[in-house]
Formats: sequence, C-alpha cells, structure tokens
Amino acid sequence: MSFDSMWAALEQVGRNAESGGYRRYAWTKEDATLREWFAGEAAARGLHLVEDRVGNQWAWWGDPDAAAASGRPGVVVGSHLDSVPDGGAFDGPLGVISAFAALDALRAQGFVPDRPVAVVNFGDEEGARFGVACGGSRLLTGALDANRALSLIDGDGVSMADALVVAGRHKDQIGPDPEALRRIGAFVELHIEQGRGLVHTGHAVAVASSIWPHGRWRLDLEGEANHAGTTRLDDRRDPMLALADVVTTARHSAHHHGCVATIGKVTLTPNAVNAIPSRVTAWLDARGPDEDSVRAVVSDVSAAGGGALEESWTTDTAFDANLRDRVQRVLGGVPILTTGAGHDAGILAAAGVPTAMLFVRNPTGVSHSPAEYAERADCLAGVDALREVIADLAGPDRP
Amino acid sequence: MSFDSMWAALEQVGRNAESGGYRRYAWTKEDATLREWFAGEAAARGLHLVEDRVGNQWAWWGDPDAAAASGRPGVVVGSHLDSVPDGGAFDGPLGVISAFAALDALRAQGFVPDRPVAVVNFGDEEGARFGVACGGSRLLTGALDANRALSLIDGDGVSMADALVVAGRHKDQIGPDPEALRRIGAFVELHIEQGRGLVHTGHAVAVASSIWPHGRWRLDLEGEANHAGTTRLDDRRDPMLALADVVTTARHSAHHHGCVATIGKVTLTPNAVNAIPSRVTAWLDARGPDEDSVRAVVSDVSAAGGGALEESWTTDTAFDANLRDRVQRVLGGVPILTTGAGHDAGILAAAGVPTAMLFVRNPTGVSHSPAEYAERADCLAGVDALREVIADLAGPDRP
Repeated sequence: MSFDSMWAALEQVGRNAESGGYRRYAWTKEDATLREWFAGEAAARGLHLVEDRVGNQWAWWGDPDAAAASGRPGVVVGSHLDSVPDGGAFDGPLGVISAFAALDALRAQGFVPDRPVAVVNFGDEEGARFGVACGGSRLLTGALDANRALSLIDGDGVSMADALVVAGRHKDQIGPDPEALRRIGAFVELHIEQGRGLVHTGHAVAVASSIWPHGRWRLDLEGEANHAGTTRLDDRRDPMLALADVVTTARHSAHHHGCVATIGKVTLTPNAVNAIPSRVTAWLDARGPDEDSVRAVVSDVSAAGGGALEESWTTDTAFDANLRDRVQRVLGGVPILTTGAGHDAGILAAAGVPTAMLFVRNPTGVSHSPAEYAERADCLAGVDALREVIADLAGPDRP
Repeated sequence: MSFDSMWAALEQVGRNAESGGYRRYAWTKEDATLREWFAGEAAARGLHLVEDRVGNQWAWWGDPDAAAASGRPGVVVGSHLDSVPDGGAFDGPLGVISAFAALDALRAQGFVPDRPVAVVNFGDEEGARFGVACGGSRLLTGALDANRALSLIDGDGVSMADALVVAGRHKDQIGPDPEALRRIGAFVELHIEQGRGLVHTGHAVAVASSIWPHGRWRLDLEGEANHAGTTRLDDRRDPMLALADVVTTARHSAHHHGCVATIGKVTLTPNAVNAIPSRVTAWLDARGPDEDSVRAVVSDVSAAGGGALEESWTTDTAFDANLRDRVQRVLGGVPILTTGAGHDAGILAAAGVPTAMLFVRNPTGVSHSPAEYAERADCLAGVDALREVIADLAGPDRP
C-alpha cells in the first residue's frame, strides 16, 4: 500500500488503450471499480468507511460524530477518482492516493491524532457524464438541487436517476447531507497543478489562494435539416455558421476581457456528411479573474449564438485565509497560486467549510489530457507536505 | 402489395420515435429487415432474386443471362432502401416501391416483356455508416476498391469487413461484378426530387439531365488537449478556431464559385466541456456545376484547414442522351432537370450503363430530413411514368 503500489493499482482502471487516457465517469462500471478500490484501502487501514447521502466516500480514523459534538470536527484530506474523457492519471487520483500515503506516513511515525482524520473520495467531480462539474460536493452542500441533478441526461439519453438505479443506488437518497458536512473541521485537497505556475519557482508544492469564478453554458443553435447537394446557399439555415461565430467570438471576447473561454464540446444533429445539420449544440466554458469579466464574455458569446443557457456557475472562491496562511507557514513559505480550475474544495469553501488546496508541480502545465504528468519526486514531496499539514491540523497543538 | 401497403410495411423500419426520421445503415439489423422485405416482395411476385458480389439485390422477371447472351439485356428499375441519419421516408424507398408497383400495373395490363425486367435494391447508397456514398454501386462497377471499402471504419470503430461478418456475409466475396452489370441494358432510377425544381412547372415528374460533380473531403484539425480553465489563451492550440475558419471559408468560397459546400459532420476529441480538443475532424461535402469550380472551393477550404483528404469524388455525370430523350418523349415532354445529388444511377452511368432518372415533385424541396415529403398523387404519377417507361424500353417495339 505504498504510494507506488496504490498508483499501480489504479493505473489500468478505465484506461483507453488507444488514447492512453482515462474514461472514468460517474456511476459506471469503472466508477464502481474505483469505489471498491477506495473501500479496500480504507478496510486495509482499519478506517471506518461512511458514504454520505450522495455516495461520496469517507474513510474515517476516529469517531467524527463524537468529535464534532464536542466541538473538535475532523480533518479531511482527499480528492476525486473520476476523469474527463481521455483525462490524465493525476487529476483526482493523486489527491486520494497522497492522502492515504500521508496517513500511512503519520502512523509510521507513531502519530496519534487529537481529532478524527478522514480520506475522502468525491464522486462525479469532472461532470463528464452529466455535464455538471463537482456533482458530488454540490449535491452534498445543496449547491446543486437533487431533482435537477437526477433529471440530467448523459450522452446516451440516460438520466442520472436511471444511472443510479443501474448502479444499485437509491435515487431518493440523493440530497444535501448537513450531518456529513458537520464532521469536517477542515478540508485540504491536494491536486496536480493545471498550469505552469510552479515551474519557475523552484518549489514542488504550492498553496491555493482562490479559484476564479467559472461556469458552463449551453448554446442550442437551430437550423433546418436539408440535403447538402441540392439546397441552394440562400435557402439554407445552417447552424454551423452560428457555431463558427460562437467560437471566434468566445476567443476574441475572452482575450479582450482577460478571461479564458473554450468551446470544447459540440454535438451535431444528425451529423451526416451530406446533410445540413438541423441543430448544433455547443458548450461554453468561461472563467476569469472576476465575475463581471466572465459575464461580459458570456454575454458576447450568447449574442453570437442567439442565447446561452447557464448549466453551472461558481462565483469567485477565496479559500479560508487563516487556514491558507497556517498551511503556508507549516510548509515553510511555499508559493501561493490562484487557479482557473474548479474543485470540490471550492464547493466546500463556498459552503463555509474551512478549506485549503495544495498544488503539485506540473512541468508541462498540461492537464485533462493523457499527457498530464508530474515527477514522482514532486508527488512524494506532495505526500510529505500533506503529512505535515495533517500533523499540524489534527495534532494536539491546534489553536 | 399495393403502393400503399408496401409503403405501410416500410414505414416503421428503422424509424426513430423521437426525431421521426429514419436510421437505416448498411449491414445493420434494420438493413437486414429491409433486405428481407425486398426478398419477400420478389418472392410474392414470382421474381427470381439474385444478389451480386456486393450484396445488391436484383429481382428478375425473365432470364437476364440468356437475354444478355442474345444481345437483349434487361431493363432495371429501382433505387435504395438505406437512409442518412434521421433521413426521410422517400429518399430511396420511393424508387423501390414505385418499381414494384409499376411492374404490378404492367402485369395487370397483361403486358409481356420482350426482354427481362428487374427491380434493384442497391445497398449502402447514403454511405451513412462508413462515409462513402453509393458504396453498393461503386463496388459493383469497381469505382470503389474492395480493400479500401473493407477497411472503412464506422463511428464505433467497426470496419466494413467486420460488419459484413456480423451480418453473416463473406468479405472475400466483395468486389466488381461485371456479370451482374452485363445483364443491364438500361437502368431507370425514380427518386424524390431534392430541390424545388418541379414546383413551378405544373409537372409531377421530371427527367434528369446530369449530376453535378461532387465529393467528400476529410479535414483533420490538430490541436493540443488541455484544461479549459488553466491554459492561457496564448498557450492554446485550439482546433476549434480552425473549424470556424473552415466553416466560414466553405460558405464564402462556395458562394463565390457558384457551388454548394457543407460541413455537416464533425467529431471532437475528447469532446468534453472543460477540455480544449486535441483534434477536430470535419467533413466537407462540395458540389457544383463544373469540376473546376468545385476544385476551387475544396482548395480554399483545404487551405483554411491545413489540408483535406479526398474520401470520394464523382465527376460530372451526364445521363445517356438518347435514353433521356426517349424517356422524355414517352412521358409527353416532362421537364429536364440537373441535380446536385449523387445517385447509384450516376455511378452506373459513369460505368457506361445507359441510365436515366425520374424525379418526383417535392413541394418543400426538403430532403435528408424527417420533414421530407411528396404528395401521394405525385408518387402515383411517378409509378405511372415508370410503368410507361418500362413498357417502352422492355416492349417489343424497342428499336
């Protein structure tokens, strides 16, 4: 159960042989395999496995309810195990594996925590299947309405409600779980950096300051299906022209407003070489340093596409300043970074949970790709940092 | 086995309840159902069913080999039964059903042909599954190489070779079939018009003069997969920008050169909301009144996309002028139309088979769409026209 053996155990789960990337989506067979792995790791360490109403997995060392009742809620570390389509090996799993490894290191030192410690595996963080990111933590905090979530449809037309039934779950159970939240005194998520902010600092690990406001919007571009060979240009209602406008507007407006904007998912109906599409659906991902800038980009893109439907929105999330400063101090003054990526840590922070994030250096900055990579030495530095942070937060000296 | 009962028998095969359109693709379950229907119609009329090497179905009235040997090859009528994704009910099936109905009408009159007559069902005309249109007729004539066809891949990664095995076929059998071609003295394909050329003429039926040169090209737009939230605009290689350029260039260049050009099929990899695509593949369908104009459009689009791979190309196809004039005379001076749509009739004409086409009026011009439609009275006028043409071509008085 070393870092390396945990890494090896996950390396083939949901890996596509052709792309080399991972396809680990919520409530699939691969998801079940990952959950079994997590349960096994918890059992092997004598940790008490609890699932909240949403199905997020918590492996507790100590009794979190008793501790919470006595005003000493637990310290939680971890991340998620699911992936984007053809994602990399690090985004998510690195945080979960590092959490277990940090616990192992503390125990090897003979550390006895003064409050409970848990490793968490949040479900459906990437939202790859149903389109809403951080589904597990959003449902947990109530930021995502259970009925809305259950009615989300995947690419095959399967609702989340039906997917839960197939996975042997009870859909009626899905909803906010304040009891599970009360157990968390602090949450620290370790994650591979998804940019190159650390590359020139000489540090392997950084602490996050805030997450940019970000969201997803859907644009339904309507056209009229017709024959590609016999329909005069003037008679066409071709939604691909609107798509072209949406794509270029997204880039120009993002540039103008200092944001990033991406059209990364598009579906054409019927998607046939010799048919003008009747409909093109495009998704916009937009993020930026402040809400007004992001809203301005969305407004421009919406105007180009004839309307945009908000599928998710997360305001600027500043992590707990005290916790951030404390973590930075414990780690001897590592850099502080902002990020454009959303995380479960951001959802919990927005719900009032004291939350911090650690980033592990990413030499290329590439993420959400099979080429995503971090050096093993940097990963182990991350484990060590997490060990120090847990020792501090769960140790007897916490103020 | 009236026109209406044949129409009713096919109405639900491969129909998608949600879109109302048809999904009848080569070598699928739906395809097998349509083939069984065709065989049943042949058997019910005592016609002799023959499949050529490619699997195209021929229902013969009379002995075509004996007739061909004596210099009186047969008269063939028919079309195809497959569809584009979410296609209409008329494109293809109207020609096959009308052929059977015309035969029935001739027999009811006591007509005895002086040479064999056949109804044909060409397979894989739309190329919806493997991307090459008129696959059945192209393989038959040798215009499409068998090895190239067998290696074509569908959207699920299944090769045509594997699809044939699943359908219980022998892939080694696929290839040109000159013997089947020798049986055809003339081929007349009836088809719904795919534009509005007949609407203002007062005629329900027209004769085709030629098919525009047309082809399909694939553009592989390469990018670099990366995180949509953390990758700076300047660091991106986003193939969606190239797609936007390809789409707008196709429209502008087609307008400039008097052609039509369509980007109707696009695939994104990985197609995730929060990932910059690593690759976008787009297909161009381009057609026009002359080869130089179409080539100019393709050249412009290729320049915008960094190259375009030709997947199919069909030069300007003029139908047999004598046959066209004769058909027009028999039908009492119906209009003559050109068309931008490819057909099996065009492939056979290019292979030297005397070929003609009849178009049935399409009041909206809509085709390749669930909304495709022709009036019943116009369809029956088409049957009647086909009956007269067969009577003329297969009757004793043919010069």
